[in-house]
Amino acid sequence: MINQINAESKLVTLIARIEKTILSTGNNGSNYLILNLVDMSGRVEARLWNSTEKDVEELKTGSIIKIEAATNVYRQQLQLKVNSYEVINEEEFEKHSINIEMFSISAPINVDSNFEKLVEFINSLENEVYKKITLEIIKSYESEFKTFPAAVSIHHNVVGGLFWHSYSLLMGAKSIKEVYKYANVDWELVYCGAVLHDIGKVIEMAGKNAAEYTDEGRLLGHISIGNTFVSNKAIELNLQDNRDVLKLQHVILSSHGKNEYGSPVEPSLIEGVIISSLDALDARIYKINDELEKVEKGAWTGRILSEDGRSYLNHYNKKETK
Amino acid sequence: MINQINAESKLVTLIARIEKTILSTGNNGSNYLILNLVDMSGRVEARLWNSTEKDVEELKTGSIIKIEAATNVYRQQLQLKVNSYEVINEEEFEKHSINIEMFSISAPINVDSNFEKLVEFINSLENEVYKKITLEIIKSYESEFKTFPAAVSIHHNVVGGLFWHSYSLLMGAKSIKEVYKYANVDWELVYCGAVLHDIGKVIEMAGKNAAEYTDEGRLLGHISIGNTFVSNKAIELNLQDNRDVLKLQHVILSSHGKNEYGSPVEPSLIEGVIISSLDALDARIYKINDELEKVEKGAWTGRILSEDGRSYLNHYNKKETK
Amino acid sequence: MINQINAESKLVTLIARIEKTILSTGNNGSNYLILNLVDMSGRVEARLWNSTEKDVEELKTGSIIKIEAATNVYRQQLQLKVNSYEVINEEEFEKHSINIEMFSISAPINVDSNFEKLVEFINSLENEVYKKITLEIIKSYESEFKTFPAAVSIHHNVVGGLFWHSYSLLMGAKSIKEVYKYANVDWELVYCGAVLHDIGKVIEMAGKNAAEYTDEGRLLGHISIGNTFVSNKAIELNLQDNRDVLKLQHVILSSHGKNEYGSPVEPSLIEGVIISSLDALDARIYKINDELEKVEKGAWTGRILSEDGRSYLNHYNKKETK
Amino acid sequence: MINQINAESKLVTLIARIEKTILSTGNNGSNYLILNLVDMSGRVEARLWNSTEKDVEELKTGSIIKIEAATNVYRQQLQLKVNSYEVINEEEFEKHSINIEMFSISAPINVDSNFEKLVEFINSLENEVYKKITLEIIKSYESEFKTFPAAVSIHHNVVGGLFWHSYSLLMGAKSIKEVYKYANVDWELVYCGAVLHDIGKVIEMAGKNAAEYTDEGRLLGHISIGNTFVSNKAIELNLQDNRDVLKLQHVILSSHGKNEYGSPVEPSLIEGVIISSLDALDARIYKINDELEKVEKGAWTGRILSEDGRSYLNHYNKKETK
Amino acid sequence: MINQINAESKLVTLIARIEKTILSTGNNGSNYLILNLVDMSGRVEARLWNSTEKDVEELKTGSIIKIEAATNVYRQQLQLKVNSYEVINEEEFEKHSINIEMFSISAPINVDSNFEKLVEFINSLENEVYKKITLEIIKSYESEFKTFPAAVSIHHNVVGGLFWHSYSLLMGAKSIKEVYKYANVDWELVYCGAVLHDIGKVIEMAGKNAAEYTDEGRLLGHISIGNTFVSNKAIELNLQDNRDVLKLQHVILSSHGKNEYGSPVEPSLIEGVIISSLDALDARIYKINDELEKVEKGAWTGRILSEDGRSYLNHYNKKETK
Amino acid sequence: MINQINAESKLVTLIARIEKTILSTGNNGSNYLILNLVDMSGRVEARLWNSTEKDVEELKTGSIIKIEAATNVYRQQLQLKVNSYEVINEEEFEKHSINIEMFSISAPINVDSNFEKLVEFINSLENEVYKKITLEIIKSYESEFKTFPAAVSIHHNVVGGLFWHSYSLLMGAKSIKEVYKYANVDWELVYCGAVLHDIGKVIEMAGKNAAEYTDEGRLLGHISIGNTFVSNKAIELNLQDNRDVLKLQHVILSSHGKNEYGSPVEPSLIEGVIISSLDALDARIYKINDELEKVEKGAWTGRILSEDGRSYLNHYNKKETK
Repeated sequence: MINQINAESKLVTLIARIEKTILSTGNNGSNYLILNLVDMSGRVEARLWNSTEKDVEELKTGSIIKIEAATNVYRQQLQLKVNSYEVINEEEFEKHSINIEMFSISAPINVDSNFEKLVEFINSLENEVYKKITLEIIKSYESEFKTFPAAVSIHHNVVGGLFWHSYSLLMGAKSIKEVYKYANVDWELVYCGAVLHDIGKVIEMAGKNAAEYTDEGRLLGHISIGNTFVSNKAIELNLQDNRDVLKLQHVILSSHGKNEYGSPVEPSLIEGVIISSLDALDARIYKINDELEKVEKGAWTGRILSEDGRSYLNHYNKKETK
Repeated sequence: MINQINAESKLVTLIARIEKTILSTGNNGSNYLILNLVDMSGRVEARLWNSTEKDVEELKTGSIIKIEAATNVYRQQLQLKVNSYEVINEEEFEKHSINIEMFSISAPINVDSNFEKLVEFINSLENEVYKKITLEIIKSYESEFKTFPAAVSIHHNVVGGLFWHSYSLLMGAKSIKEVYKYANVDWELVYCGAVLHDIGKVIEMAGKNAAEYTDEGRLLGHISIGNTFVSNKAIELNLQDNRDVLKLQHVILSSHGKNEYGSPVEPSLIEGVIISSLDALDARIYKINDELEKVEKGAWTGRILSEDGRSYLNHYNKKETK
Repeated sequence: MINQINAESKLVTLIARIEKTILSTGNNGSNYLILNLVDMSGRVEARLWNSTEKDVEELKTGSIIKIEAATNVYRQQLQLKVNSYEVINEEEFEKHSINIEMFSISAPINVDSNFEKLVEFINSLENEVYKKITLEIIKSYESEFKTFPAAVSIHHNVVGGLFWHSYSLLMGAKSIKEVYKYANVDWELVYCGAVLHDIGKVIEMAGKNAAEYTDEGRLLGHISIGNTFVSNKAIELNLQDNRDVLKLQHVILSSHGKNEYGSPVEPSLIEGVIISSLDALDARIYKINDELEKVEKGAWTGRILSEDGRSYLNHYNKKETK
Repeated sequence: MINQINAESKLVTLIARIEKTILSTGNNGSNYLILNLVDMSGRVEARLWNSTEKDVEELKTGSIIKIEAATNVYRQQLQLKVNSYEVINEEEFEKHSINIEMFSISAPINVDSNFEKLVEFINSLENEVYKKITLEIIKSYESEFKTFPAAVSIHHNVVGGLFWHSYSLLMGAKSIKEVYKYANVDWELVYCGAVLHDIGKVIEMAGKNAAEYTDEGRLLGHISIGNTFVSNKAIELNLQDNRDVLKLQHVILSSHGKNEYGSPVEPSLIEGVIISSLDALDARIYKINDELEKVEKGAWTGRILSEDGRSYLNHYNKKETK
Repeated sequence: MINQINAESKLVTLIARIEKTILSTGNNGSNYLILNLVDMSGRVEARLWNSTEKDVEELKTGSIIKIEAATNVYRQQLQLKVNSYEVINEEEFEKHSINIEMFSISAPINVDSNFEKLVEFINSLENEVYKKITLEIIKSYESEFKTFPAAVSIHHNVVGGLFWHSYSLLMGAKSIKEVYKYANVDWELVYCGAVLHDIGKVIEMAGKNAAEYTDEGRLLGHISIGNTFVSNKAIELNLQDNRDVLKLQHVILSSHGKNEYGSPVEPSLIEGVIISSLDALDARIYKINDELEKVEKGAWTGRILSEDGRSYLNHYNKKETK
Repeated sequence: MINQINAESKLVTLIARIEKTILSTGNNGSNYLILNLVDMSGRVEARLWNSTEKDVEELKTGSIIKIEAATNVYRQQLQLKVNSYEVINEEEFEKHSINIEMFSISAPINVDSNFEKLVEFINSLENEVYKKITLEIIKSYESEFKTFPAAVSIHHNVVGGLFWHSYSLLMGAKSIKEVYKYANVDWELVYCGAVLHDIGKVIEMAGKNAAEYTDEGRLLGHISIGNTFVSNKAIELNLQDNRDVLKLQHVILSSHGKNEYGSPVEPSLIEGVIISSLDALDARIYKINDELEKVEKGAWTGRILSEDGRSYLNHYNKKETK
């Protein structure tokens, strides 16, 4: 498996899924393929030099391949140089004792049981408007909500990442409520907003293993998609004149916190401030931690684009101290 | 009428509508009222010094009043000092030979006939999706679309301003089509986008004489309201899976041109670039011209906020040269 | 008491402390005084019109005064117009059954018992470096840390505000730890950073009732003052070569999150990201809630400078729903 | 011809002009040449791998070459791999039945006849100052004005591009005049400003086939060059004290709209707002359309730098629908 | 004289020039005049309450007036309240033993003798192009160059301020030459650029006592005016093809250092970097020092707009220590 | 030596120190090494193609190597292609008649004698607080202060660069004092601030030949390190309550001029303005001149990152004209 490969493993045999294929031309004029490989244990980049048209034909995004490859370390990142490969079609999966589930990284939480907890919790709320709209929407898109990633690369880009991220926000909101009991906060709005704030991603992302956005996603954005979900559902439920619907829409629309980050309106409900802050914090912790795990203790991560290009120091390893 | 008052008219009698009342405390501790007055010929600011509670009670936003006032020039702007006033109730309108229509500035175009031209033109388009959605929406909100202003103060803040602004965009788009015939532009999308880009203002603005935004407008913004109009209408018309709907939504969502100006997505259709450019140009010409008309030839306008605080030189008077 | 005054109370008698006196010249050429008054129940602005030199002499920042005043509502904020006043000297406190403690707003938590809890908690940590430095510093400045406000006006500007804010961060950090147990976070660094991040304010603020910053505070800033506290304390404790000291310094230095907000270094430890995020969220919730409490349900707050001038809608009252 | 080459044409023979030669070192240590080729039908990039010093000598910017090359598709852009080449000197042109005009892309309008129309139109204006200065300047630089490109790469980078762009602005301005007849706009100033706004490019660009800027252009910029053209011409015509000259200078100086885009003054005449808006729109439509034409319907363009790195969706093909 | 007035001088008699008159309306509805007064010793603001039309007529910008006034301190700035006034016409100057020179603040250097030194120094340079153009231009505008201020309010707003500022730059440049002798700097270009960089202000400013900019200044800006001075002079001297002319133009055009500060080109000669840095430093020192002189030692200045609103601490008095 | 190599020297033999080794993977899948070489005469980049693990082992940062290499010009920069190499260990230095000092570029000033002049000058100051703290600190770190570079790459990245830069600021400050004798400037504070403003770099930089920053430097930054130096030294000298100490701290903390450039406080002493301006100017002159020296007269430098990516024209060569 991918996470077992390291700089010392000179030659490896690996079965993996191609998350994305990029065709490149080398400076000597010959083509080569960059293969972003993934299995349930992690991701690794492989390169096939001097690729032929047949290679391009076979090594498509989504294919399951078995490769013989040499390891290489480039800018402190492990790379593979493909010596030979074989595409494994679906009918051959059994022969290789594999199934498609083995080639995706999954969120490290039990999505199914936590989804039930989430539904149960929302069901326990008192505000019937927030409750109904939230439950109806997540049930309409239950499968996508439970399996889609939260982003292509910025954060939570794993199967179930969208749910994981949304659920983390809900948990975070519940946990800080006690600290802010002095304030006039409609916590039920915070909770439902946390669950729904990224729901438009079920349309924006191309699928649970998506490495790309859909055209619809690029033209509308998940914020506006989520907003129309609420608007349409309110009409269905004959709630279009209820002002609590506006509040749900507002916390989705304002969830990026600022116009320049893509929110058409900036928060003007205190609940929107809480949701957008927890959203940003959750994404940042995921991403920084993900990069920290790629380097050794004492080393600095590469430049993280979403952190304005900053590097972070890996100074602490939770496993050591437990 | 307001546009007949000038610095020379020492004492005036005027019937006008209060567009907005602002209660202020003077530096001597007594209260006074700032009355933004309007009639069909223009706007003027009046002040009632040493106001009583009864004055506050009577001089409400929306009231029609008859005043005796002295003129005053402050920072090159005419002001009125109210000496005495009388509130005119609706039942007394006839007695004063007035009607409510006389107390609003209207767009200087024939809205009704131009609305018909607009409908006819949209009806002549070939794209059935753009056409149906556009016509259905403007008909649903025909009255508001024809009477609401385009903004509280930035631009086209007159009765019919929303229509005037939208129609100007349509006319502008039609006029430049010939120049850009070399380009791959879906002009029917430009036309329908021009008509619909600000349609959410029928909810965002508080009314045809609105000097304020609605709560719904502040929480959602006209861009997102317009987007849900299209989304909801597409469902009604069973067009929700038609990709042309997405394009209409996109040109509304991207009509402010940049995230930082409140568009949740930036243009990724060339038609969105044309609409957002014409939108900005139309609003700027209106506003700068409006300020130029307040000062004499050879003078500079006050600082215009929407123009980054710049002043403009009144160097040319179209009437002179005609 | 101040919080009992409302628009209906026409004439009031009040004993209060002058938090700040501002001398102004009215547009009629006479002077007047703006008095920011405070007692334990709240704040209110009073004005004394046509003030004399003697008034200026007597109505100094810090004085306790007894006034007869008329209420006035200006831009939806209650104001008082002082008709007569009397300064109450310390020797007369007993006569009026008052003491100085009655004229400050205090943080709505029990600072003493919570300070003990905080010390106990820090004492329970395993990292001796973080623990010792944190405890030594807060003990050196225990009195200031427990009584100073967190800011002049932006947030937590009450007696004990600095402690309240720091303690809220600690509570928030403890509460979200469970959500982020997957990540490589040195929580003890987060906890001590939360406690120390604003400790420099014990020098930066002019006192527990401070309405101003000290010269030292303006020249150095609380971030750099806090950083030298840790550096100096480490030398005292002979820990200057321990790398954990650097980490504590880093999370203080980076606590504003970005250079442009006054942090000389931006976070490069994940713990700095958590602290700066919780810091911003805590200050924002305090400030927005404070403004929400000044307006009625259904109304919008004034423009909040620290929120980029945005207004917030008061849509929910926690007391109603409890 | 270049526009006839596509991914299917495996081996091609082509005569083209080298618009720019870039020497590069491959990662294997050998040099190679990137040749930007152009003929009247379009542009294509070719690469000569393992180039020798002799190759570098011969394959200079500006040379006409005949190549045998293999096609290659790289990041959805067609590339050529040069197998062999031959330089064609001017004396051999006849032999190959070619002439130098065949190796430049030209603006898709008849420059000569449109130039005459432009002159005629300007001649018909009433303002003698605008008219004389404009005509004198464009006649002084007639050849450059009619043949130079409008930019190296951002927009209208074809022979005659400067004229095409300036003429498009004039046409655009004339077409929208009707929409803005209500406003105090000196349209003759708009027209002459449209013609002259980029005139400094006749010095800034290195020539009609320029792929580079002159030193003079880099040190002064076309805006300041154009401004001195007007100033010098006014002295020649003894008009230096006429205030209309200032207005012409102003609309040139302010034509980039904002200081940050290189205008030393921002518009303070309404005509400057119209010119700078039409200028930006014209450049954007050209560039986006140019990129749209490089990709197939349904595909997204590459990231366009001048559009803040955005991609655009090719969703409409004007040829299909005509 | 103005600098002899202080808070203790209760009633004063003063003859001064009105630098600027601003008509205002008080909150009690009556008008008042703000008079910016100046004499050779300094500036002070005076107010005439309850002004009549006759007052407005008489108290014009530029008038010399004799007033009886009461002192007042407002926001730590001294103000005068005019009790009575008398306008002194030119024919009465002798009677009052005054002349117009007594009512302007002058640069604290001997402009005439330093101007001669400057001319002599430029005459001693070796580069004939820089030398001739510089000398010809400053001689053409000798009177304005020697008397005009450098700005309306930002810096060096005194008679001779333009010369003082330009001469300071020249002195600064000469003084640091020794430090940078290692670098490839064309010091003669720096010197001439220092002298000419603001020369366009002789047109931009309305006069030596100017409190306003000319229309020409506002439409073109001093940078572009100075640039055409050089261009026109080069033509006169038949130097239009000499490349050193371009360099002089470049250092004028780039003297604001960045596009966003109004330079149409940013420095691409090292000499432009030196000039723009010394320019900014000189203006800042003047302005900050000017504000420091208004407050007492130990106090902070008001917010200085050109310093991003920062206040400065007056901590050192050069007179004390000399 | 490196500065004797040029494009004409086809094959060269060179002994140099590796300032930094970067391992790269070529597009053909083989590794290569980029070697930044340095000797006392300059820097040059060399590449070893198809590197083996043994090469990587031997060609470490810091090694002294003897190479046979071919010259190559890439983007107008000279490069070397290593044909063969030999590592020279310290014990072999004598055999090759070399010593370690020969492989560093040094500041082109006599550091030792100028350091003595600096100490003497500071000793001559009157302010005992500034004097003692400055002298004590630079003596504590004398060796580092005299040998460390001022930055890794931005400016003065040579042995002794930190001293050179600090000394240049001192010289610059002394030279302009005469120009600003009218202003209230505490020049002794300027002088000591100039000397100390970057002193934290003795910790931030990894050594005199440093091509990297220390972890401590990255976590704290040289500004905060320098600030604690002063704070700690003041305690040692029992000066912690002296307000002049605050001023020294302030000019260090504010030396980057703006928050966004990493200063935790912006200047609020006029001396801080002078120091930060001279600091920026000195760094810019060094860097631009350094780039100008890499290209021929008449050519443009590459894009300079610290100059917002601008190129500069080499138009003047000081050697020619001397």
